[in-house]
Amino acid sequence: MQAEVVTIGTELLLGDIVDTNASWIARQLSWLGLNLFYTHTVGDNPARIAEVLRTCLGRSEVVITTGGLGPTVDDWTREAAAAACDAELELDQDLLSEIDAFFTQRGLVMTANNIKQAMIPRGALVLRNPVGTAPCFAIERNGHLLVSLPGVPFEMKYLMQNTVLPMLRERFGLHEVIKSRVLRTCCIGESALADLITDLMTSDNPTVGTAAHAGQTDVRITAKADDPALADRLIAPVEVRLRERIGDWVFGTDQETLPLVLQRLLGERGLSLATCEIPSKGRLSSWLLEAQEDTGSLVGSLVLVPPFQAHMRDGMALDLTLSSSQAECDAAALAVRAWFGADLGLAVTGSQTPAGEEPSMLYMAVATADGVVQGIPRRSRSGGTAAGWLLHYAGDLLRRYLLGLPQV
Amino acid sequence: MQAEVVTIGTELLLGDIVDTNASWIARQLSWLGLNLFYTHTVGDNPARIAEVLRTCLGRSEVVITTGGLGPTVDDWTREAAAAACDAELELDQDLLSEIDAFFTQRGLVMTANNIKQAMIPRGALVLRNPVGTAPCFAIERNGHLLVSLPGVPFEMKYLMQNTVLPMLRERFGLHEVIKSRVLRTCCIGESALADLITDLMTSDNPTVGTAAHAGQTDVRITAKADDPALADRLIAPVEVRLRERIGDWVFGTDQETLPLVLQRLLGERGLSLATCEIPSKGRLSSWLLEAQEDTGSLVGSLVLVPPFQAHMRDGMALDLTLSSSQAECDAAALAVRAWFGADLGLAVTGSQTPAGEEPSMLYMAVATADGVVQGIPRRSRSGGTAAGWLLHYAGDLLRRYLLGLPQV
Repeated sequence: MQAEVVTIGTELLLGDIVDTNASWIARQLSWLGLNLFYTHTVGDNPARIAEVLRTCLGRSEVVITTGGLGPTVDDWTREAAAAACDAELELDQDLLSEIDAFFTQRGLVMTANNIKQAMIPRGALVLRNPVGTAPCFAIERNGHLLVSLPGVPFEMKYLMQNTVLPMLRERFGLHEVIKSRVLRTCCIGESALADLITDLMTSDNPTVGTAAHAGQTDVRITAKADDPALADRLIAPVEVRLRERIGDWVFGTDQETLPLVLQRLLGERGLSLATCEIPSKGRLSSWLLEAQEDTGSLVGSLVLVPPFQAHMRDGMALDLTLSSSQAECDAAALAVRAWFGADLGLAVTGSQTPAGEEPSMLYMAVATADGVVQGIPRRSRSGGTAAGWLLHYAGDLLRRYLLGLPQV
Repeated sequence: MQAEVVTIGTELLLGDIVDTNASWIARQLSWLGLNLFYTHTVGDNPARIAEVLRTCLGRSEVVITTGGLGPTVDDWTREAAAAACDAELELDQDLLSEIDAFFTQRGLVMTANNIKQAMIPRGALVLRNPVGTAPCFAIERNGHLLVSLPGVPFEMKYLMQNTVLPMLRERFGLHEVIKSRVLRTCCIGESALADLITDLMTSDNPTVGTAAHAGQTDVRITAKADDPALADRLIAPVEVRLRERIGDWVFGTDQETLPLVLQRLLGERGLSLATCEIPSKGRLSSWLLEAQEDTGSLVGSLVLVPPFQAHMRDGMALDLTLSSSQAECDAAALAVRAWFGADLGLAVTGSQTPAGEEPSMLYMAVATADGVVQGIPRRSRSGGTAAGWLLHYAGDLLRRYLLGLPQV
């Protein structure tokens, strides 16, 4: 069973707004077990909308449109849907009365524009819209179903959840569900990770795919089944096999982020943390603190900018004059730990570089009361993802220390 | 001249991520004067990608794709583009050497997966991608142009701006220019600002429009003309009239950000700065430092997390036990200034709040050697824009102090 989504509106094509309707509908259809192979966006032009709808109805059992149902001169979805289904537009008297009542209740007068909204393709089923003025409809062509919904996200979602999804479930006897499990890894690139699991990425159900972010690579296991429990049973053995290969790289699952996992690990152990950062400019601090409730573990952070002021107090400056070696980073971790009175100190420093350039080497260290326990230099990534890699390098150093895993 | 955009990736269809590439490209093409009538999203399936590309190339002079150029088994854009253009894929030796060099420089080994990235359709023009590993290409079919770009937004934007847009401008002789001048204001809401300039917002060429961001409102003057100098002459008098109304609110123009302006103002005066922040969690520091070259003015930042450690050294803890009054914020500004030995101290603290809630009052202060010079409390904004408003409140306090403008 195949579905397509068509979002309609010139404002979407001009880039004035980002279309969030398509991805929201996509997720609903995927949970329902409908295959969504395409989405389209088309401007406010009746001929072009009709052309897209004809193509979609020719290959897909369900086509859902959003937008273009309003009262203004650039709303063309009704006309285009009628043309694509070879139907005439006709005035629906019940709809007209409803629209009239809507305005009367609010002390407003219905304009000629609004009468246009009561026109629907002959043979279409009117879908009541209790949360707005744009009437919606569903119409068949050669056994394929076209559903036209408003573009206002709030109205569209209401109609999807209360009318369209139940209708689709019943019409197509859809009991199949699609479930995903995501293993989140960090500090390993997408190709290196894929190399470890290539043979596991060719199965059909569940499928296994990777997605790269800055410093983080996700492995997604997706199963289709007749019920959620069966989908889980398809996913579980694949997750076990994946973890046998990449277990140490996996820091969390599904919606977990590395900062959330670090807060949990620190909290479970009752450990407080202080950080000292140079090349990350305060981002390490805000990254960790975004995941922190008021009972969190990070007690303070020092953001230093070279060259350091000679008269900075308290001995910190003396330990960090250059910050261009692992030994100096170790000293920074110890110093920030002591200064904030925390159980652990985490420091990230960088090599000395010419003006305006990013450091090519990063130094990281975790310090405890016993002295520096783990510190490693890392070659810095370049380009737009460098900042994300730095954060994950630093976070993973701490994660591996807390879990007793080897540093890599 | 008609263009279409095709974004490729099953993750887009599953609704895991919202596609922002299509709308970004849409805006660029609209500035260029190309008509964009359709965009499409298609999953990682070579036959379906090829089908969409064939449809697009059949009716549009320019087709731009993003995504599906990576090294993994679910990256199919190369194959689909070749099929849609009836071309064979072939190994490009130059590309292979480049990819190899990319990995070697980083001390990594190229995997078999990466070799696949050097395959491009025969007859295609390779577009160099200096900011990533995914090679891109442009290929013609019956005089229509297909351009395939990476899905990573950073890489896609770089290639659009540096390669594709100049190529399209030359190929289609697009000479009409659209020029914009943006006046950037902060700490005034969009409707309040629009109220000051309503009568200036109704002209046709140039147009005047506003756009709201978190804590910042832009006023954009846009002119169409046959050459850039003529566009500038249309814009200049409108800018003068706007500045007469909103001059003190304007902190910069065009690509300037408030941190960039602050760095310039501090630099011109030879002043160094230290910051102390609580509710902004390190974001104030990274926001200011993103705009800072190595000769910058910010020398260090202290990010504190309540409740403060009683045994924190050096008297800072004593001054900041509660951080719930303007007087304590003033003390923090003085303390951080002294501790880092800077000319100026900037502090942002917040009122005491129940667990998990944002502070409802923000306190801000600028300190000099003479004592606190300016400190004001601000009611915190709520919702998703609160963080941005906080940064602009703090930055504008410093800007108005440096320029001798009244605080508002």
